[in-house]
Amino acid sequence: MKGKSVKVIIVGGVAGGASCAARLRRLDEKAEILMVERGPYVSYANCGLPYHVGGSIEQESSLLVATEQMFRGLFAVDCRTRCEVVGISAAEKTVELKNHATGEVTTEKYDKLVLSPGAAPIRPPLPGIDLPGIFSVRTVPDARNMREWLDREDRADRSGMDNYTGFQTVTKPRRAVVVGGGFIGLEMVENLVHRGLEVTLIEKLNQVMPPLDPEMARLVERYLVKHGVHLELNDGVAGFQQAADGSLEVQTSSGKIHPADIVILAIGVRPETALAKMAGIELGQRGGIRVDEQMRTSNPDIFAVGDAVEVRDFVTGQWTLIPLAGPANRQGRIAADVIAGRDSRYRGTQGTSICQIFEGAIAQTGPSEKVLVQLGDQDFEKIYLYPNSHAGYYPGAKMLAIKVLFRKSDGRLLGAQVLGEDGVPKRIDAFAMAIQMGCTVYDLEEAELCYAPPFGSAKDPVNFAGMVAANVLRGDMPLSHWDSVDGALLLDVRNPPELDVESVPGAVNIPLPQLRSRLEELPRDREILVICRSATRAYYATRILLQNGFQARNIAGGMLARSHAASS
Amino acid sequence: MKGKSVKVIIVGGVAGGASCAARLRRLDEKAEILMVERGPYVSYANCGLPYHVGGSIEQESSLLVATEQMFRGLFAVDCRTRCEVVGISAAEKTVELKNHATGEVTTEKYDKLVLSPGAAPIRPPLPGIDLPGIFSVRTVPDARNMREWLDREDRADRSGMDNYTGFQTVTKPRRAVVVGGGFIGLEMVENLVHRGLEVTLIEKLNQVMPPLDPEMARLVERYLVKHGVHLELNDGVAGFQQAADGSLEVQTSSGKIHPADIVILAIGVRPETALAKMAGIELGQRGGIRVDEQMRTSNPDIFAVGDAVEVRDFVTGQWTLIPLAGPANRQGRIAADVIAGRDSRYRGTQGTSICQIFEGAIAQTGPSEKVLVQLGDQDFEKIYLYPNSHAGYYPGAKMLAIKVLFRKSDGRLLGAQVLGEDGVPKRIDAFAMAIQMGCTVYDLEEAELCYAPPFGSAKDPVNFAGMVAANVLRGDMPLSHWDSVDGALLLDVRNPPELDVESVPGAVNIPLPQLRSRLEELPRDREILVICRSATRAYYATRILLQNGFQARNIAGGMLARSHAASS
Repeated sequence: MKGKSVKVIIVGGVAGGASCAARLRRLDEKAEILMVERGPYVSYANCGLPYHVGGSIEQESSLLVATEQMFRGLFAVDCRTRCEVVGISAAEKTVELKNHATGEVTTEKYDKLVLSPGAAPIRPPLPGIDLPGIFSVRTVPDARNMREWLDREDRADRSGMDNYTGFQTVTKPRRAVVVGGGFIGLEMVENLVHRGLEVTLIEKLNQVMPPLDPEMARLVERYLVKHGVHLELNDGVAGFQQAADGSLEVQTSSGKIHPADIVILAIGVRPETALAKMAGIELGQRGGIRVDEQMRTSNPDIFAVGDAVEVRDFVTGQWTLIPLAGPANRQGRIAADVIAGRDSRYRGTQGTSICQIFEGAIAQTGPSEKVLVQLGDQDFEKIYLYPNSHAGYYPGAKMLAIKVLFRKSDGRLLGAQVLGEDGVPKRIDAFAMAIQMGCTVYDLEEAELCYAPPFGSAKDPVNFAGMVAANVLRGDMPLSHWDSVDGALLLDVRNPPELDVESVPGAVNIPLPQLRSRLEELPRDREILVICRSATRAYYATRILLQNGFQARNIAGGMLARSHAASS
Repeated sequence: MKGKSVKVIIVGGVAGGASCAARLRRLDEKAEILMVERGPYVSYANCGLPYHVGGSIEQESSLLVATEQMFRGLFAVDCRTRCEVVGISAAEKTVELKNHATGEVTTEKYDKLVLSPGAAPIRPPLPGIDLPGIFSVRTVPDARNMREWLDREDRADRSGMDNYTGFQTVTKPRRAVVVGGGFIGLEMVENLVHRGLEVTLIEKLNQVMPPLDPEMARLVERYLVKHGVHLELNDGVAGFQQAADGSLEVQTSSGKIHPADIVILAIGVRPETALAKMAGIELGQRGGIRVDEQMRTSNPDIFAVGDAVEVRDFVTGQWTLIPLAGPANRQGRIAADVIAGRDSRYRGTQGTSICQIFEGAIAQTGPSEKVLVQLGDQDFEKIYLYPNSHAGYYPGAKMLAIKVLFRKSDGRLLGAQVLGEDGVPKRIDAFAMAIQMGCTVYDLEEAELCYAPPFGSAKDPVNFAGMVAANVLRGDMPLSHWDSVDGALLLDVRNPPELDVESVPGAVNIPLPQLRSRLEELPRDREILVICRSATRAYYATRILLQNGFQARNIAGGMLARSHAASS
């Protein structure tokens, strides 16, 4: 190719593909870049779709981050929308492109091909799945159709009020069923509630938000119920049918029927691999496109990026499918770098994510406990903590619920889950940066994070997590968990009024301030598990007991953890 | 000391001292711990004092994080308030304690002594400095006195209204002068404005918030003025006097007189070293107590922690005085660890800080440019960026102003300054964690931070900072700054309507979309400095120019940086 410019065809013009095209142009002014997108828009904000349906993002045009025209004008990229790849010959290095506007099919040669097809919403072949009023959330037209569906009914209702004086059947959509309690499902729940609909959330698993550990998801579930959401766990959808009045009925595996005026399918996504199969490139064990660290597929002239590819989990090293916008954008850049002759490498994905739900946020980085358990990992410990989002003496502090996973052998931070109504992004990003840099919990202890009363505490929750975990690893605070307390001697060091609110059957109560003078009431031949509200006083008590020759462990997270413990 | 418990005296019962006492008790149940505090309260939230004056924190009791009683009951610490150390004999290992309630002086022996005396507000010996109505902000009684001063006047006003029907001289305090524009000064400004006062801020230096670089402080100054604060820079206070009506007049070095009903002195703090001098221990070059990594002073049985000690700057390695609550707390823990026989070490201080000012926040971590310049460091580069706090298509996104400093030779992140009305803590903590872990800008590029439309962007501002800096270091984007553009050929690639708002005299205008077709208008024998609004389009232009054989540099931060450039 000496003296000849490289011809690159990028298939898919959203996150990964669009990033790749823009980056490649910056690195190689001479490259011939053709970016094709099957849909009508490139570079649109699909993460914003639920908020457009909900109305927080009023204008559809707000979702169009960059346009076809911008790619042509600013980046000199031959950008074609409504243009689908209908054939790939890896041997010939050609793609067949179908122009959906004209129906014309043309063949284009490439030197390098970049696949960024994304992932498609799963639509199981259930009875009635194609009935009107059942929507998936992927594209701008999807959102437009949902809005029209919701608005059309509104209009029917209003015009009825104008034309008749008597009663009118209210056809305004008021009941929504959201199927699937992951990110998109929860965002749709929030946005439909925001629009005033009565919302039922159906989830096949025993928890919402599957990346979270179940006991953390418990808190989300309570929060949903508190906000008026009807929650149906452990129940899958069996089918849909139209009721006599034209509304929908959602039938579940358990035999329930949920009436609905609109149904949102948010069961999950499946990597789009049709193109990869066409090109004869290798898929991975999770069904995504297999790529190396340079985003190169099994064919050295074909790259793949975004939701369709399998990536290495940064912490566990396992292949995984993590459909997130940040990684997709970075992968697009890396593919461009490599095509331009640079040695960039993708480091893997941590799964850092956040989801707004009403006033709260649910965030995570690194693997969950259940992932570690699945991998047979036994070299980890977990802690729970419930600190204030900022100094308790400054108004507006909210309790955070934090779970942290770390290596028993060397203290390395593995994962964190943070829920709360204030200060969640600050903490999850500190944990995310810490995981990326291979931090230990000892590093977290010493982290110097920002503090002023409205924003944090002198000991930030991130420091506090490090201190608690380091106390465990240094042997200062042997730990126990609520799932292994059966038959143990429980010592509750809270004050009697707190026990009146909730107590643990069989636990001995010695308030912490009395403990030093009442040690003789406790046995020296049995292990004592210590409880308080959040495990702070229990830690003090454990220290007193250990130094006085008792065997003692602190129950992680105290009564607050018990309230959402997996076994409860 | 075999078989004998260690006797530790801790002098100063706030942040560092209180942390030390509590930690030491947890590590050593047998230690005899005496904690003395000169003032009436231990472990109070001095960071909350401005907010108590302003009224956001209504109850004084909210400021009392832990009480004398709690230290006695929970921690078995002999805690004495209103108890001052009036003598130390390092040779005898004794301290003389004066009980201010009784006047009694007793002598106590120690095995280990921990000094946590803090830092005192600077009160220069100016004429009139002791007039009533002039306050410093350090202790709970200080805040109480200020509130009483402000409230008493309110009452006088109200009782006047009740008792008379005619006109009444309004004596309600309405004019405040705050002297000093650092953290405390700005927090007091905000809180006095919040109380409805007309506030003048007098600062001797040419900028507010001295830890910031001056061009970043410019943004804070504009923000203060926008919020109605009268700002007087480059003017020190010369003295105070009482006016005929009993109000105050603040005279400045330049000869101005500012009338005031209340004056807040927030000129800075000075480490309290009287005790250290009494004990004959070494002071450092900045006038603070010199300690080693284990918080040990020059006398191995005497430790010192908190605002009174000099610490190493984590990045520059220089001795520094950084009076912050987080470091004080960690130092207290470390002193306790070491006394209990552990090998804990303090890693130094990054100076991570944040200050709320009206709806905005000012945050920083790591050294500023001016500190690096002072040290003669020439191996650094700086960038400015102005990203949205979260996805621009989601409502409520605010522009952040970010300055990042990094090593030219190896890309190591050195410091960051972040200002804005949304998302500041999230970014500064990511930068802070990154600096702690020795991150490079290449690591920032790859950081996987949380993203959902309400909380961030697929390319978070922290990633964006990494990408811009890495572009500079990789040679993809040679950089220039506004202070070195004189005589250069300037190319403005914005669109003509943008130039109508503000343009740069002498700059050639070629809008970016036309650049590729108008290259022949530009000279090949001169370096071209490229401008746009925020330096993104200028980056694209620079790439086009460089690849077409031109010499080009991007002016860091574009027009947005120009608006507050140091030279402007």
